[in-house]
Amino acid sequence: MATNFIVPPQLHNDLVAAAYQRRGFSADEAGAAARFSELTAWHGIKTHNAIKALHLDELFGSKAGGCRPGAKIDKLPGKFKAVERWNANRKLGQATAFAAMACCMKLADEYGSGTVAVDNAFHYLWGGGYVIDAAKKGYIAYTCCTAALAEVVPFGGRFPTLGTNPHSWGFPTQDEIGFPICIDWATSTVAMGRVQQFIREGKQLPPGTGVDEQGNETTDPNKVKSLFPFGQHKGYGLALMDELYAAYIGGSLPTLRNRWSEVNQQPGEKGTCCFYFQCIRPDAISGENFAAKRSQKENVNAVLKDILGHGNEKALLPGQLEAQAAALSAKHHGMLFTPAEIDALKHIAQEAHFAFDTASLRTVEI
Amino acid sequence: MATNFIVPPQLHNDLVAAAYQRRGFSADEAGAAARFSELTAWHGIKTHNAIKALHLDELFGSKAGGCRPGAKIDKLPGKFKAVERWNANRKLGQATAFAAMACCMKLADEYGSGTVAVDNAFHYLWGGGYVIDAAKKGYIAYTCCTAALAEVVPFGGRFPTLGTNPHSWGFPTQDEIGFPICIDWATSTVAMGRVQQFIREGKQLPPGTGVDEQGNETTDPNKVKSLFPFGQHKGYGLALMDELYAAYIGGSLPTLRNRWSEVNQQPGEKGTCCFYFQCIRPDAISGENFAAKRSQKENVNAVLKDILGHGNEKALLPGQLEAQAAALSAKHHGMLFTPAEIDALKHIAQEAHFAFDTASLRTVEI
Repeated sequence: MATNFIVPPQLHNDLVAAAYQRRGFSADEAGAAARFSELTAWHGIKTHNAIKALHLDELFGSKAGGCRPGAKIDKLPGKFKAVERWNANRKLGQATAFAAMACCMKLADEYGSGTVAVDNAFHYLWGGGYVIDAAKKGYIAYTCCTAALAEVVPFGGRFPTLGTNPHSWGFPTQDEIGFPICIDWATSTVAMGRVQQFIREGKQLPPGTGVDEQGNETTDPNKVKSLFPFGQHKGYGLALMDELYAAYIGGSLPTLRNRWSEVNQQPGEKGTCCFYFQCIRPDAISGENFAAKRSQKENVNAVLKDILGHGNEKALLPGQLEAQAAALSAKHHGMLFTPAEIDALKHIAQEAHFAFDTASLRTVEI
Repeated sequence: MATNFIVPPQLHNDLVAAAYQRRGFSADEAGAAARFSELTAWHGIKTHNAIKALHLDELFGSKAGGCRPGAKIDKLPGKFKAVERWNANRKLGQATAFAAMACCMKLADEYGSGTVAVDNAFHYLWGGGYVIDAAKKGYIAYTCCTAALAEVVPFGGRFPTLGTNPHSWGFPTQDEIGFPICIDWATSTVAMGRVQQFIREGKQLPPGTGVDEQGNETTDPNKVKSLFPFGQHKGYGLALMDELYAAYIGGSLPTLRNRWSEVNQQPGEKGTCCFYFQCIRPDAISGENFAAKRSQKENVNAVLKDILGHGNEKALLPGQLEAQAAALSAKHHGMLFTPAEIDALKHIAQEAHFAFDTASLRTVEI
């Protein structure tokens, strides 16, 4: 049991928006950032909440030149009707990503599928948030991006030349099972934050997690400098995909990405990330011939019941933990933050000159 | 060193086509099957060559009712312009898959992306073949399908309710590096064929490979009845994706799939697989703003060189082993088969009343 503070969405969003506006972002951008941080905290995604978002903005974003408050997105003209190409001009990642996914949905409404490729992008934080949002609107959604830094060693290699490059898929299964299925993870064995957790806990990492400074495998979390892809050559292929999409869109060398001091010394070089988004309408892929006269939704439900039947009742569906966290937030009419997180939010409030009265927050033991 | 027989493509394809025609398939279908088996053997894909293709046709296909020679594909009318929905009516998988990928390319030429969802499909064997073929024609290509039988246990479960459900991605990198990158694998820890290899070699499986009849994990290959997904919850999510696409398209319960004796006892039930195909044109996602004034292809090359530089020179790219096998086939002007495989081809020739003069085949020691 531990004490958690309950922060109502409105208060949370006002605080986050104030912090972004204080850093020079427009009201629209700050609103997108607040809405996105709400999504993360509501779903229990501690690794990409407002605290992390604003910290990353400090490290690589508006303070480092990787992100430009008030930037306008340029949409390139093109002859291909179901795919758009955007130059984000380093606009805030969350605002760019929400807009790109909205465009995919609109394209999918006409063409069945819609795709948006984004160049010169800044970190969008948690791909799962965008695909869950699109899935709740009825779409099968996908996104991947090149992660900020190259921290992952190719399978068979020694030096990190790949990002932790995540993939996120969302399926609109909320009517069937109560929440959208969300398949969402980085392609590294673990996140770097998890390595730091092993250091704090004084534990050894499992074999196959990563390599030290010299490129030799180690299980000592203090020595781990770079990570392996999960699942050997399979995860390696998935990590490579993000780099390939980015290479076709306009990303430059992975080892330069977001290393702004190096990038700025090389005229003509780029340090930005790329995003890739896609939506498909379920009715656009329906064969309209489901067994036992089921509807499409009834069929999806029947398939999921079969998968989790036969003694598999303890297996979870991807997205289920996030849905459980969301249910907890709904029950308490607010997002749950630990005392340490509340302290971090206080600092953010101070920077933003925002009145954040923590004494008035309700608490809950969980 | 072992003796390999060199089978010239024309002879190989005539033999395979004769075998398919003997089983009642049309000349077009037999031609597609021959062309596909050539692709597999040319790229060293032993697990899905003509021998395996014809064996699967016996087990689940034209002899079992899962595949119907001469079937016509119905293309469903639809308002979504970049996505087509096909009812394959159990047509030969290879013929269906080639046609579907060709349709994706044509749609991509107009819309930037093209998608084809196929219901009532029969096993297409090796997804890598179709994406390599499309990549060589200049497209970024993807396919996944529901595998014939449910042999994989959901992460956290005990009973196999998922197929070995593969994913295959191809990228048109042949101008840059000499071959298309092909990311292609099943989502199970290993293939069932690999378990049989461990039995033959008297070896134990690595921990985490699969479970026995009772759903308990075992490393004894003699006891393994079902497999785990690779990469724990991550591979599980990827395996689930194929089932979800299939559920939206028209596939029924995974545990019924291709179990024809059970399916046939349940009126209104379906035992067929589903396919999902997609092509994207690289120029449709180009941001046209590559670092150091590189072209798109030069940029892809620079990114790949960065990934395989810095001490990673021993790392391979996905598709490289297949490309090496293809180079060997090209060098010998034919596909390499072991003596055991030649014996199997002789049996196929006998069944097809095809004159297969093995004495005239050249051999090579490799």
